[in-house]
Amino acid sequence: MSNSLGKLFTITSFGESHGKLIGIIIDGCPAGLPITRQDIQKELDKRKPGENPASTTRREGDKAEVLAGIFNGHTTGAPICLAVWNKDIDSAEYVKGRFLPRPGHADYTSYIKYGGFGDYRGGGRFSGRITAGFVMAGAIARKLLKLIKIEVIAHTVEIGGIVARYNDFNEIRQNIASNPLRCADAEAARKMTAAIEEAKKQGDSLGGIIEGTVLGLPAGLGEPVFDSLDAELSKALFAIPAVKGVEFGSGFQVAREKGSQNNDPFVIENDKLVTSSNNAGGILGGISNGMPLVVRIAVKPTASITKSQQTVNIKEMTAAKLETRGRHDICIVPRAAVVVESMIAITLCDFALRAGLIPKVIR
Amino acid sequence: MSNSLGKLFTITSFGESHGKLIGIIIDGCPAGLPITRQDIQKELDKRKPGENPASTTRREGDKAEVLAGIFNGHTTGAPICLAVWNKDIDSAEYVKGRFLPRPGHADYTSYIKYGGFGDYRGGGRFSGRITAGFVMAGAIARKLLKLIKIEVIAHTVEIGGIVARYNDFNEIRQNIASNPLRCADAEAARKMTAAIEEAKKQGDSLGGIIEGTVLGLPAGLGEPVFDSLDAELSKALFAIPAVKGVEFGSGFQVAREKGSQNNDPFVIENDKLVTSSNNAGGILGGISNGMPLVVRIAVKPTASITKSQQTVNIKEMTAAKLETRGRHDICIVPRAAVVVESMIAITLCDFALRAGLIPKVIR
Amino acid sequence: MSNSLGKLFTITSFGESHGKLIGIIIDGCPAGLPITRQDIQKELDKRKPGENPASTTRREGDKAEVLAGIFNGHTTGAPICLAVWNKDIDSAEYVKGRFLPRPGHADYTSYIKYGGFGDYRGGGRFSGRITAGFVMAGAIARKLLKLIKIEVIAHTVEIGGIVARYNDFNEIRQNIASNPLRCADAEAARKMTAAIEEAKKQGDSLGGIIEGTVLGLPAGLGEPVFDSLDAELSKALFAIPAVKGVEFGSGFQVAREKGSQNNDPFVIENDKLVTSSNNAGGILGGISNGMPLVVRIAVKPTASITKSQQTVNIKEMTAAKLETRGRHDICIVPRAAVVVESMIAITLCDFALRAGLIPKVIR
Amino acid sequence: MSNSLGKLFTITSFGESHGKLIGIIIDGCPAGLPITRQDIQKELDKRKPGENPASTTRREGDKAEVLAGIFNGHTTGAPICLAVWNKDIDSAEYVKGRFLPRPGHADYTSYIKYGGFGDYRGGGRFSGRITAGFVMAGAIARKLLKLIKIEVIAHTVEIGGIVARYNDFNEIRQNIASNPLRCADAEAARKMTAAIEEAKKQGDSLGGIIEGTVLGLPAGLGEPVFDSLDAELSKALFAIPAVKGVEFGSGFQVAREKGSQNNDPFVIENDKLVTSSNNAGGILGGISNGMPLVVRIAVKPTASITKSQQTVNIKEMTAAKLETRGRHDICIVPRAAVVVESMIAITLCDFALRAGLIPKVIR
Repeated sequence: MSNSLGKLFTITSFGESHGKLIGIIIDGCPAGLPITRQDIQKELDKRKPGENPASTTRREGDKAEVLAGIFNGHTTGAPICLAVWNKDIDSAEYVKGRFLPRPGHADYTSYIKYGGFGDYRGGGRFSGRITAGFVMAGAIARKLLKLIKIEVIAHTVEIGGIVARYNDFNEIRQNIASNPLRCADAEAARKMTAAIEEAKKQGDSLGGIIEGTVLGLPAGLGEPVFDSLDAELSKALFAIPAVKGVEFGSGFQVAREKGSQNNDPFVIENDKLVTSSNNAGGILGGISNGMPLVVRIAVKPTASITKSQQTVNIKEMTAAKLETRGRHDICIVPRAAVVVESMIAITLCDFALRAGLIPKVIR
Repeated sequence: MSNSLGKLFTITSFGESHGKLIGIIIDGCPAGLPITRQDIQKELDKRKPGENPASTTRREGDKAEVLAGIFNGHTTGAPICLAVWNKDIDSAEYVKGRFLPRPGHADYTSYIKYGGFGDYRGGGRFSGRITAGFVMAGAIARKLLKLIKIEVIAHTVEIGGIVARYNDFNEIRQNIASNPLRCADAEAARKMTAAIEEAKKQGDSLGGIIEGTVLGLPAGLGEPVFDSLDAELSKALFAIPAVKGVEFGSGFQVAREKGSQNNDPFVIENDKLVTSSNNAGGILGGISNGMPLVVRIAVKPTASITKSQQTVNIKEMTAAKLETRGRHDICIVPRAAVVVESMIAITLCDFALRAGLIPKVIR
Repeated sequence: MSNSLGKLFTITSFGESHGKLIGIIIDGCPAGLPITRQDIQKELDKRKPGENPASTTRREGDKAEVLAGIFNGHTTGAPICLAVWNKDIDSAEYVKGRFLPRPGHADYTSYIKYGGFGDYRGGGRFSGRITAGFVMAGAIARKLLKLIKIEVIAHTVEIGGIVARYNDFNEIRQNIASNPLRCADAEAARKMTAAIEEAKKQGDSLGGIIEGTVLGLPAGLGEPVFDSLDAELSKALFAIPAVKGVEFGSGFQVAREKGSQNNDPFVIENDKLVTSSNNAGGILGGISNGMPLVVRIAVKPTASITKSQQTVNIKEMTAAKLETRGRHDICIVPRAAVVVESMIAITLCDFALRAGLIPKVIR
Repeated sequence: MSNSLGKLFTITSFGESHGKLIGIIIDGCPAGLPITRQDIQKELDKRKPGENPASTTRREGDKAEVLAGIFNGHTTGAPICLAVWNKDIDSAEYVKGRFLPRPGHADYTSYIKYGGFGDYRGGGRFSGRITAGFVMAGAIARKLLKLIKIEVIAHTVEIGGIVARYNDFNEIRQNIASNPLRCADAEAARKMTAAIEEAKKQGDSLGGIIEGTVLGLPAGLGEPVFDSLDAELSKALFAIPAVKGVEFGSGFQVAREKGSQNNDPFVIENDKLVTSSNNAGGILGGISNGMPLVVRIAVKPTASITKSQQTVNIKEMTAAKLETRGRHDICIVPRAAVVVESMIAITLCDFALRAGLIPKVIR
């Protein structure tokens, strides 16, 4: 069941990059949620390679199809199966390089684990394309969370060493929509764009950091000790290819702080208990404390670059040079942010169902 | 089942800080593993508050007891139940402060989630004390891993902004044993000690970073896409109270790097395929690549400090001052490193069993 | 995850009777198993309504399609997705009778549970058609079991009170193939056929009993206490619509026996320990003992009959008469036997993987 | 995790017959349930060997102890750990017969599976004694079900071929309490007692059938397709040692019935939809239909008998005679009925939590 995630709201991923389709099954969605193919398509489109220089030239005009579980415009309570059919596939490059594992990719580990039987075309199951399924499931999760007024936003906060500055959620919400890099800081976005263009010229790629924020999360969500909010979120986020780190609130910065600085004092505001700072990122003891949940995700530079790289022919066990052509994103951070939103939404749906916040039938 | 972790090697945590006992059940351990109470005690002792200034003055002379699953000096294949009975308990402070949630602690979130029915004494289920159970389970996991020559080391790499420098694994292995801070850099350890003493004087606490390293891990371990090596490790590590971040290999540093820098080239060394750098931290596509696994964990400064703090009386909903006395660690990083070793070992045992690396009966 | 079954060899069912498709995902199948679409089709065809009077007139010329997880004629280790697309659908009867729950069917309970949002056409998720997915997954499971020489046979032992007599496995194996009722006793099969024809004339239906037998099962399979061989098999078998009872070995007959009769004596035969009788049905303490596993499954008479029945209009809450036309099996026992074989095979694959009997990569 | 059962209300069993203790952990119990040690003891006492001739002479004056999860007379939301410490142990017989597997027992299969490392004393993990843990967990489950007015009754309906007759639930409820055999039919109970005494004289044992009934179960409980009410109940019931069959409603009798007889017509009674018969045993499509749930469980005659039996010395692989002395129940049916009640209650709690029928905090 390593391709399934979640306890009460469970997604099961299937399909390969150059196979027939990329699919996802959502099991445990309450019946009666109004949803259309267009709702799912809209979310999927956000993940589409944009007009910005960061993206692949592969034309992923992905069209979401509902295969099961939605009837008369509503979820039925049965497993929902969503798919996008693969098109515009060119596997020639992959067939040629079958025994030349690409540095930074799963080619080698997959080869070892599956004895060479894996579908290596386009990275097979290890392609970023499988996240199309996550985003379709995320569309449903976000609809459910909307019912209980929980909003998930993910945005680019760093690319190639350029750090975005921003003030509040309204600013973030507005700017990321208008911005192909999903960055709340327009000035930083310009610099990031320049850095991406420069990397492209060099045949190189860039990494970055995404920040996910959840507003409207009530206090009391999360199941300690092992199914805590942070544990389950981190697990879900590490399923996104290229993620190398996850931190909550102050994150790694805590190593440089004292308890008196890092502890968030409890205060009363408008008759409600809140904390006057949010170093905890909205989580105490694995349970939400009612403050905005803040998580940051490190995304490595795209492993596929056109610069020549050193590898090994694993069939002949000889040194080899790799010159990848293919079509790749220079920096996947902006598109990954859409996936981050989905994974957070999916995880929170699971917790909301465990806490009984969402009814089994939506009327 | 939020108190259980693992699929084939499953631990179930129970017990409270000031209750009768702290316990752990290990289900799925192969039969025939030779193990004694002393083996478990030895591991548990590593977690004991040391002679260093960082630790609590609570005398946790914890004695491991085998309640089930070990017979004639071997595991039986049945669930193993291990416990430490609580002694030297002083709950007075907690009873007094029952309605004054301590900043940075789970008091408030637990109160909301469990409607005030939780055992609040000593933090109850949210105390670091529950990690005594993790360490006992870790003792068994480490024994199993030893059979297949996998070694797990965790050491302090940063405390209060002081960063340790070190060269190789032999150095780490040697130094951390001789050092109450489990730090591979003796010079840094001295500075950390001074920083801890200074924080103690101020009634404050310090955070830090732990690095976990796994040697001898064969390529091919890990179950993508959701049960990947990094996903499951991060989930397990976030169960340790005070952990705020987890990163693998280059971690958050990837945001400042190019693909050509971050990709680890494949080369042949002694007829074996290896990578010439290890920015991936031993994991590609969620599967081990045969290089040392490297994970770093951010540990926040102990939430309990003696400095006066602002809080709210949650019964009367009025502002309040908190002056914690109690007995606390100034910096839990060194002790948490022992728990990190355990959680890594436990997680790897699960993967080793899933991969069929450990037989069902050890003869 | 109520639509998923199994721990290491996991199937996930999706699709509805009159929706686009019936599908199944198999997660955890080792890589390298040679398998073709035809292998799956062959198994699926066994479930096809036959030329015998027992079957529906719905022409289920189901064509298995591989959507993911099989590449170059082998499993890849990735999730396998198999589907049959629905054709020859006539939902008119169902739309008309939407608020008239059919006695013996899940119409009413589904309506209550899913608030009327369920896909009621053709029984939706509650149709026997979903077992087409089980059988496709069973095709893969049976291929895997064949590698370790485990054979699963299920045959009709009773229909409409007529009991089959048979002597040994060779007889069963031969006869059930030649016989549209999958009955080892040709004489009984003739009487069953007559009884079915009589029931058909009366607009009625018949129930029966299926016996599943597993040959070649090694001793030591099964995971007590809750994941025992009998517990998991019974759980899997109750997923087949219309199953009302499951018994192992002597089954309910034990209520009339003494320990001295029911205990199977241990003896040595050909230098091997066996039992001289098999009242245990091959299971002791939830673990296989090396003898043939024997399980019997009670299958109720098809709930759909053309005889007039009493029901309630659940929208108007008034008494109503139900005259089902539709196209139904008079007795599903022979077709259910194919599904029984599949569910047993799927469950045993899971246990074989848990026991490490099947390698992770088949070479 | 084969020693854990349930998804949201999870029990984990540990301990051995002649080890230190028999224990159970209940994870997922809502906080705030008022419960005392005495509540648990009362339930445990029902399982105690009675004054009737059916029971063992081992004096199981089991005393329930709360080790964790209950505080100030209420559940805390944390895992509850309950234990009984083993006393009055005599392992001599078992040590002597270590290599002589008892027919009908798990001695042989356990030996094979665990390579001889299992705790064989008193049957170890395979002893009926582990059901003491089930009954303690059942005490909590029953308390929870009482909150939502669900009542579980299990009673003896057959022993040694003698069948009990009874009319309604009130009769059952009254009679089983007054009757050491938990039989609703006083006349049948007398005959059963005579049969048990006769079997005792012969050094033999008797099997029987238990009927479990659930009153007050609302329609809509159960999670199809694999986690259906019948599937999960059967799985839970097969965890009870000696169970060889489980059937719902008409059960195996369906093989002799026509659809027109077996279908339960829907009718309106007191403005409520009910069925005029209950052949379905309260379950349609794996979901409760609001009628009483009826399940029957076949319990084999106690495997331990004093009559001489044929076995094999598995160390020397030679034929051997077994003369068991020990202290055993002649017929475990009446005591098993208490365990049946517990397993049903535990399973229904899980479903009630999944359906959101029980709040997360009980106030």
